[in-house]
Amino acid sequence: MYNIGIDIGGTNLKAGLVDEQGRITATKKAPLRFASMEQMGEVLARMAIELTEENGVDRAQVASVGMGFPGPVDDRRGVVIKTVNIPLRFMPVAEMFHRHWDVPVRLGNDADCAALGEYYHYEDKNIESLILVTLGTGIGTGIILNGRILTGVNGCAGEGGHIVIVHGGEPCTCGRRGCWERYASASALIQQTRAAMEADRASCMWDMTGGDLNKVEGYTAFEAMHQGDTSAKRVVHQYVEYLAEGLANYVNIFQPEVIALGGGVSNAHDEDLLYPVQALVLDRVFGKEADVHTKIVKARLGNDAGIIGAALLGRSRQARV
Amino acid sequence: MYNIGIDIGGTNLKAGLVDEQGRITATKKAPLRFASMEQMGEVLARMAIELTEENGVDRAQVASVGMGFPGPVDDRRGVVIKTVNIPLRFMPVAEMFHRHWDVPVRLGNDADCAALGEYYHYEDKNIESLILVTLGTGIGTGIILNGRILTGVNGCAGEGGHIVIVHGGEPCTCGRRGCWERYASASALIQQTRAAMEADRASCMWDMTGGDLNKVEGYTAFEAMHQGDTSAKRVVHQYVEYLAEGLANYVNIFQPEVIALGGGVSNAHDEDLLYPVQALVLDRVFGKEADVHTKIVKARLGNDAGIIGAALLGRSRQARV
Repeated sequence: MYNIGIDIGGTNLKAGLVDEQGRITATKKAPLRFASMEQMGEVLARMAIELTEENGVDRAQVASVGMGFPGPVDDRRGVVIKTVNIPLRFMPVAEMFHRHWDVPVRLGNDADCAALGEYYHYEDKNIESLILVTLGTGIGTGIILNGRILTGVNGCAGEGGHIVIVHGGEPCTCGRRGCWERYASASALIQQTRAAMEADRASCMWDMTGGDLNKVEGYTAFEAMHQGDTSAKRVVHQYVEYLAEGLANYVNIFQPEVIALGGGVSNAHDEDLLYPVQALVLDRVFGKEADVHTKIVKARLGNDAGIIGAALLGRSRQARV
Repeated sequence: MYNIGIDIGGTNLKAGLVDEQGRITATKKAPLRFASMEQMGEVLARMAIELTEENGVDRAQVASVGMGFPGPVDDRRGVVIKTVNIPLRFMPVAEMFHRHWDVPVRLGNDADCAALGEYYHYEDKNIESLILVTLGTGIGTGIILNGRILTGVNGCAGEGGHIVIVHGGEPCTCGRRGCWERYASASALIQQTRAAMEADRASCMWDMTGGDLNKVEGYTAFEAMHQGDTSAKRVVHQYVEYLAEGLANYVNIFQPEVIALGGGVSNAHDEDLLYPVQALVLDRVFGKEADVHTKIVKARLGNDAGIIGAALLGRSRQARV
């Protein structure tokens, strides 16, 4: 049997056929184009159907189709509540999908799906709790407890980027000030790097970016630090500090078995990011005297996590390999 | 059948016989005195046994004895990991208790037990998630998800007072800076009130406290505000702001069905505390467009919550009335 997972992004749909070991055996990608909400259900169903046909898989061999949306969903009612960057509001996706293919449909938030994928493929299959923290434009968090996604009463749980860590700090798109993602997302790191460059015209980061602030990336400060650049070093240290601050908050609340860091920034050398973050967090959390602690690790699946996790929505937790 | 709950405090033990409706039918209180860790098990067992004998309850009528400790516990292994204000470290309470009475023993953290009590007695019996936030010397949080306590991998989850909301802020006993409880606990409110008095010698709070800063209580600023005192009003508004900041963080993470506020401060008039906090939190959280939201309410059980919750540890969630 297979499960299909579809990752709905702002510009593309990516679908994958996922086997019983939770591996992607085939994928399909298409630009996101639909004229009406009604059409969206058809687009998704056609994509899933074509994925089976193109790969010679009988539709009866597909146990479920799961979809990860960039926003809150109500999986029980089969409804997408809202999406970011796509104008979907209270869309009955499951019902619309079923007009074209009557297969069990499951809906998830994309960050939650990615967390489920990481959880499923985590090396220790005995864990029951994992939080995936994705450092991107914002900070996305997906929370798995007792092997299940924490959705909250309205599908909006796990908005981990929007916990205030700097009271009265930087304004956030959510309307609050001082949200964690304003300090520890990849975008925040890029802003911090630019600010450091503007304050230090002698920084080697100017050479690295050809004098163009628009060419600053998440890795710029990390690379410059290795060339001995003092401003870059300060940026990295401050960023690590902000990242650890929010992670320590999460540990004090959940004490999960695993926190996995995802997103491009998490690919920095372990010596520059993962190890110092691990040390700072352990130094700050409650329960230092306990004999078990949260493991902070790098996420493993990259962009596949969303598809795999969406596919896994249709499985019971017992089905984990 | 009954369940016994014992609340272990820094100075007293309080035990209660709890009936099938989750009500306390008899209590017993004793000062906490023990010469060795070994003796502690005996003290607890004797207290539970005496509670049955004094109330004419046959021991066979007791389904479990649950105990709430001020610190992390490992319920599966029957071990208290650490307690605040009492020198217990890795104490095998269940085993020690069983030398005197072979009844199922369950261990919990006191804040978690209180949350379980509030959850059980919450008016809507269909809820599955409740977070109890107790405003006292610090801020204690007990987190109930899917009808179960969130303990974390090491029993240390739910240290909700120790999430940093003011990066680099006031030093906290936990070693970090800017923890929520340094701004929104009852102790913090008292400190904020004192500081406002010192900055305003004309405040009516000086009369209310007989000119003695040591007589400032959590309600002082609330009362003075009703007498038109401007400094008191500022204190209350600022306090409400800090309280809402942390609560909005919790909502963005969990979107629980209910957050209950406990501790003396929560008894302020609803117009002064509960209603403005509800409004501020709703204004800040993610998912405003959802059709269901976290309800913020006052806790109901007061000091009994700990005993009731400890007793309930021995029940499955299905047993809820």
